[in-house]
Formats: sequence, structure tokens, C-alpha cells
Amino acid sequence: MSNVRALSCTRCDYQEAPASTEYNCPRCGGVREVLFDYEVIRAHFGKETLAADRRWDVRRYLPLLPIPEGAPLTPLRVGGTPVYQAPRLAQKAGVARVWVKDEGGQPTGSFKDRASFVGVARAAHQGQKIVAAASTGNAATSLAGLAASLGLLPYIFVPATAPEAKVAQLLAYGAKVFAIEADYDTTYDLCQQAVAHFGWYNRSAAVNPYLVEGKKTCGLEIGEELGQDPPDWVSMSVGDGCSLAGTYKGLVEMFQLGLLQKIPKMLAVQAAGAAPLTRAFDAHTEEVERLEAQTIADSINVGMPRNPLKALRAVRASGGRFVNVSDDAILAAIPEVARATGVFGEPAAVTAWAGVHAAVEAGILGKNDSVLVVSTGTGLKDVKAARRATQASPTLAPTMDAVIKRVESL
Amino acid sequence: MSNVRALSCTRCDYQEAPASTEYNCPRCGGVREVLFDYEVIRAHFGKETLAADRRWDVRRYLPLLPIPEGAPLTPLRVGGTPVYQAPRLAQKAGVARVWVKDEGGQPTGSFKDRASFVGVARAAHQGQKIVAAASTGNAATSLAGLAASLGLLPYIFVPATAPEAKVAQLLAYGAKVFAIEADYDTTYDLCQQAVAHFGWYNRSAAVNPYLVEGKKTCGLEIGEELGQDPPDWVSMSVGDGCSLAGTYKGLVEMFQLGLLQKIPKMLAVQAAGAAPLTRAFDAHTEEVERLEAQTIADSINVGMPRNPLKALRAVRASGGRFVNVSDDAILAAIPEVARATGVFGEPAAVTAWAGVHAAVEAGILGKNDSVLVVSTGTGLKDVKAARRATQASPTLAPTMDAVIKRVESL
Repeated sequence: MSNVRALSCTRCDYQEAPASTEYNCPRCGGVREVLFDYEVIRAHFGKETLAADRRWDVRRYLPLLPIPEGAPLTPLRVGGTPVYQAPRLAQKAGVARVWVKDEGGQPTGSFKDRASFVGVARAAHQGQKIVAAASTGNAATSLAGLAASLGLLPYIFVPATAPEAKVAQLLAYGAKVFAIEADYDTTYDLCQQAVAHFGWYNRSAAVNPYLVEGKKTCGLEIGEELGQDPPDWVSMSVGDGCSLAGTYKGLVEMFQLGLLQKIPKMLAVQAAGAAPLTRAFDAHTEEVERLEAQTIADSINVGMPRNPLKALRAVRASGGRFVNVSDDAILAAIPEVARATGVFGEPAAVTAWAGVHAAVEAGILGKNDSVLVVSTGTGLKDVKAARRATQASPTLAPTMDAVIKRVESL
Repeated sequence: MSNVRALSCTRCDYQEAPASTEYNCPRCGGVREVLFDYEVIRAHFGKETLAADRRWDVRRYLPLLPIPEGAPLTPLRVGGTPVYQAPRLAQKAGVARVWVKDEGGQPTGSFKDRASFVGVARAAHQGQKIVAAASTGNAATSLAGLAASLGLLPYIFVPATAPEAKVAQLLAYGAKVFAIEADYDTTYDLCQQAVAHFGWYNRSAAVNPYLVEGKKTCGLEIGEELGQDPPDWVSMSVGDGCSLAGTYKGLVEMFQLGLLQKIPKMLAVQAAGAAPLTRAFDAHTEEVERLEAQTIADSINVGMPRNPLKALRAVRASGGRFVNVSDDAILAAIPEVARATGVFGEPAAVTAWAGVHAAVEAGILGKNDSVLVVSTGTGLKDVKAARRATQASPTLAPTMDAVIKRVESL
């Protein structure tokens, strides 16, 4: 018996059984939401099943995921990422408690593996050999790695100007790369056309509603681990909005299932140079205007978010807020988090921490508040940013005198 | 009651209680070995304690580690890395079974975190604030990250020519970097002098015998996970030799404790351009000659291994072998492993897989053999190597015609 009850359009509210298409609303083209049958889920999932389950990864939550029974699963260990208490960060921001959830140890180094976990399982179950995406970032890398693990073929569309290093990683996983002589938007649209033409499986979280369900495992994990002592807030950086929306959905489900005592408020953090959702949120609208985006945090460098409704509604429903942070604040957060916790995050990852400072300054967070920061990707993804965030060391002559002088200067 | 019985010199066999010094033999200066009291260990560790233990990281093995009770432990999740079956790799090499143990998800992205786990715990327990190392590679990054997590100060000595990107990571963790205008050997010696002068804690696995004990957790994990169905061989790349020696010690201990049915043979893999240990092994000697080392696998680019005895003896005792692989074979192994498993390794990591091919060619491994490959670090540490290992894609005009042509050519 399937745990999925229906797909519901976030734009026109049209609901149907998950049958006619995997992707957008057949009536209005809007992004859809997966609705579950929690009666079915409760029969297979709860405190007792979790206590007995020794799989410390997203497979713990299979009863809550839209993956048909018998679907091939990646052998890679997705999820089960650690949550660290960070008292030194709490002190720096002047809040009561801070936790950092480090996604850097995921198989391909980022949060996006949660979505790809569901995507490749569904593709393989449907007998699809080719899975496609348009991206130069973590989503493409993640799809390529997880597809390889299941013997699927990743077809990735990138602008021809994409950094060679990022493309090299895709090629290492065996991706067929389509380097398009155009900008990202044109590349994205061409990928959608090709997907329709060839019938490939589509890994775009703005088209394929099942991917957000993979992302919700982050919220499920927070709910399980901190269920008895939940944070007041969960802070995440926001680009398209899917990751935050997914995490929020997981928190809500754990609350509804009685495993999480209260639903944290969502602190949605955008880079000041790429903040169309903050603007829409503050204007109390769901109409999002396209902006020219420009931020060092490339994973959230999004001017026209392709999934705005879910993120805006999640933050509103949680009683949360959007805040913006400057690129300088993002850069400063890289060493601040690394020094206080040992977690080295990429710019978009530490943006969530920079947002805590911004929220304290704005009076949104106070000294009695606790906050969990989701660090969404490893700093190894963008070492150049770390270089910009730190100061070079003086060079020393190879003598003890020089060493002693340097020590005295520290 | 301490689980450590004595320190024994690998060169002159002098034994003493662990008292006079933490480091090398006070008689001859040789590298020492930590000897344990397995009676004490058996009282606190075995099948039952493991079954009840829900910590899926190296803390499961604390009774087997030289960490005094009450010592501060890093909150970072070290170890507990996944082991994946890799049938497509087995088929490629013509062996019966292959497993890949992926160390890329460690807190700083490499195997070295296992050693640093022990090092920073001992340093903190002794009230040391400063921990020192000479390295530009994974050992330094690992020390810096784990030291930061405990509020210790990492002092790292690097040649002034070290790549800025690697140094940036150290700086992000708050390391005080000593950029010495000299080559690596001079830098290393100056670090040792400074450690002696200032009394800093020494994280050199060639001086501090406790670090190898952290590395043995890799063998303990293999022993626990595959104890009933162990591989015939464990393959690892070798530079200084400490990581292989540590892993072997862990396997032996799990066998002695009755948790592992047989001890695998060690397949020690060196890059052909940096293979002084293979030469010594094949010449049946423990005398190692310094070579000019030159390999793309920077983590094992070692011409004068500083801990040769432990590695040579481990391979001999296991009934194993040394093999060499070319840089071309190392580069080819990056996409081969990534495509067949989804595990993206750095050059020194996939060297262990390239060695399986070499061992099959040499008749060391046959079609009935099974082998576990330890992939010691994430490919994100050296994306340049991945770029050299893959071919650039053609660029395409932004039209469906161009896309269709490219698809037809695949």
C-alpha cells in the first residue's frame, strides 16, 4: 500500500492521485506538493521502529518517503549527518544555545544528496537509465555521484563558461556533460526541452516535487535527535527555497507524529545580493520579482527562485523570518564557524550562521533563544572563498630565531 | 586502571612504562609501539558492549585506545565511515569481491582524522594548549580542524611554497601558520626543534606513537563490520607507512579479541615514483634508502618514509605484498572508482584501487580473492587531479539540434 495519497498544486490547488505525471501540475504548470497518508505511515513508523533501526542514514525514514517498495536504493550513506553543540558560537552571537548540523560529510559533500537519494530511487524504479539536470553546483554533483552508484547515467547541462574544476568532478562520476554556449537560464530551459523530448528522468526540484521530500530528511533527523529538547529556531540559507521548505516539512511531520515537542521557527537567510525572497516576504506577497543576483555564495546565487511558494509559506507558517547578510559577513563566517567548531563550510553553508548574527542585530533572536544552524556543504567545495576570508601568513627564514620571533608576535 | 602496559621501541626493543616521554625511544631515538593490556580491555570491550553501543564512530573503541579516562574528546564525528560493496569494480579487476571503505566523509575529509582524534585528546588531557605539526597535507588540516573543535591552538609548519589553497584551509580553522623559506625536510626539522624548545604537543606520527593507535580504528571498524565474512586482502596506499601499519594493528586486535575470523593480507600500494618501501620489501631488508619522490598523489609523495619499520613488518606479518602503480594508473583509477561506486577519491585514495589491478596483473590476487580498498580521502582535496583524469566536453550551440546531435554521438 502506497504512503503517497495525492499530488497537490501549490499554485491552483488542483489535486490528483500520483498518476498522470511525475512533475508539474497538468492544469496550470505549478510546482506540486506530495501529500501523504499518515495512517499508513503510522503503521510502519514511530518511536519503537526508530529505536530498533540501526541504519543511521535516511533509510530510517523510508516509510515517510515517496519511494515505492522494492525501488533500488543507492548504497551510498546519505544523511545521518552529525549535530554538534557549539557553545563558543552561542557566546559570540549572544544567544542561549547553538547547534551546527554538518552536511559536509554527505557522499558528494552537500545537503543535495538528500534530494538525489529520492530522485535516483524513483528513476531506477521506473526503469529510467538517464537522469538529467541543469546545474553547475551541488545538485549536479550530487545527481552524478548518486546516479553512478546505481549504474544510472547522469546527463548534466551546464553553461560552457562553468568552472572547469566543477565540471571535472561531474566527468569523474561519468556524467555526460552538455556544455551550452549560453547563460544559465537558457541552459536550464534547453535542459527542460531535452528532458521532454527524450523522456529522461528530471532532477529539477522546481519541476519534480518528489525531490523536496528527500530534503525533508534533514528536518526528520533534527526532529528525531532533538525531539525532546528542540531548538527555538532552525537557520538555513535560501536560494531556490527547496531545501528550507523540505527541512520545514520534515520538522512538521515529526511534530505530527509525536516525536518532536515543538516546531522550530525557520530563519531563512539570503545573501543581500540575491534576496528576492526576503523582499517578497517583507512585502507580504507571494509574487517574486526577478533580480540580477550577485553573491560569493554561488550555491544560493539565485535571482529568480524557481520554487518560491514553498519557502515563503514554510517561513510564514513557522512564525519565522527572512534576513539578508552581506558577502563580507558570509566570508567572515567561514573562519568563525571553523574555529569555534571544527566545521569548515562553503559560503552558502556558513550563510546560515551569518544570518544568526543578522537576526540578533535585528532583534529577531534574543539571549534566551536557541538555534540550530544547517551547514549545507563542505568548505572543500570552494577553497577560494576560504582564501579570501583569511589573511596570508608572513614567510620566515629557516631559523629558530625567526620562529621564536613569530611565536612572540602571536 | 590504564589499558596501556608499555611503550616498546621498534628499533632497539627497549620497553618502559609510559612515563618518561610521550615520544621516541629515550635510548636510541627509534619510533615506539604502544603495548596494551588486553586483560583490562576484555573487561570493558567485546561483542556485547559493541552491540549495546549506539555511537557509530571511533568512540566505540575507546577501551582499545590510549586515551586516559576523562580526557576531553573532540565533539566531531570521527570514523564510523561506510563500507560499500563494489561488484562493478570486482568485475573490472577480475576478482571475486570488492569493498570500498570511504574515508572522504570524515570531519576534515581524510583518514588522518583518526590519528588526530587521539592526538588532540591526549594533548588536551595534559593541559597542552598548542599542538604542532609540519605538513601541508591532510595531517595538518586534520590537526587544525580537530584542535579547533576542542579550543586548542594548531601551530602548523609549512614550506613557504605550499599551495595557497591548502594553507587557506588551515587558516580557516585558526591555525597559526609558520611559512618557512625552505624545503619540506628543513621545515620538518625546524618544527621538531620548535616543539622541543617550546614544549608544544607533537603531532608527528613518526615521533608520537599514540597517533598510530588512532589509525588502527580503521582496522577495528573493518573487523567489526566484516568480522564474519572478512576480505582476503585489505589494500591501502603507503607514504610514511603509518596508516597501513595502524590499520593492520586494528585488524590483529579484532582477531585476538575473537571478533574477526581471520586477518586479511595487507596489499601495500606505492606510487612508482615514490616507492622506497616497495624496494626495501622486495629486497627483504628493513634498511630504507632515501629517494627523490615524484608522484601526482601528493599525500604519499614521500621519498624518505619516517616510519618504515611498522609498515614493512605489518605487510610481512600479514603475508601481504607491496606493489607499485604509475601516475597514469592512479589518474585512471579516479573516474573508474567514481563511476563504479559513486565514491570520489583523491589520488592517494584511489591508488589503493590501482594497486588491485597491479596485484592481479602480477598474479598476487586471483579470481577467487576478495579485497577491501580503503579510499583514504575525498577527491575534493585535489580537483585538479580529477581534471587531468577526464576529458573536456565539446561545447554546444544553445539549440535542440545541437543537443540531439550530441545525444546521438554518446
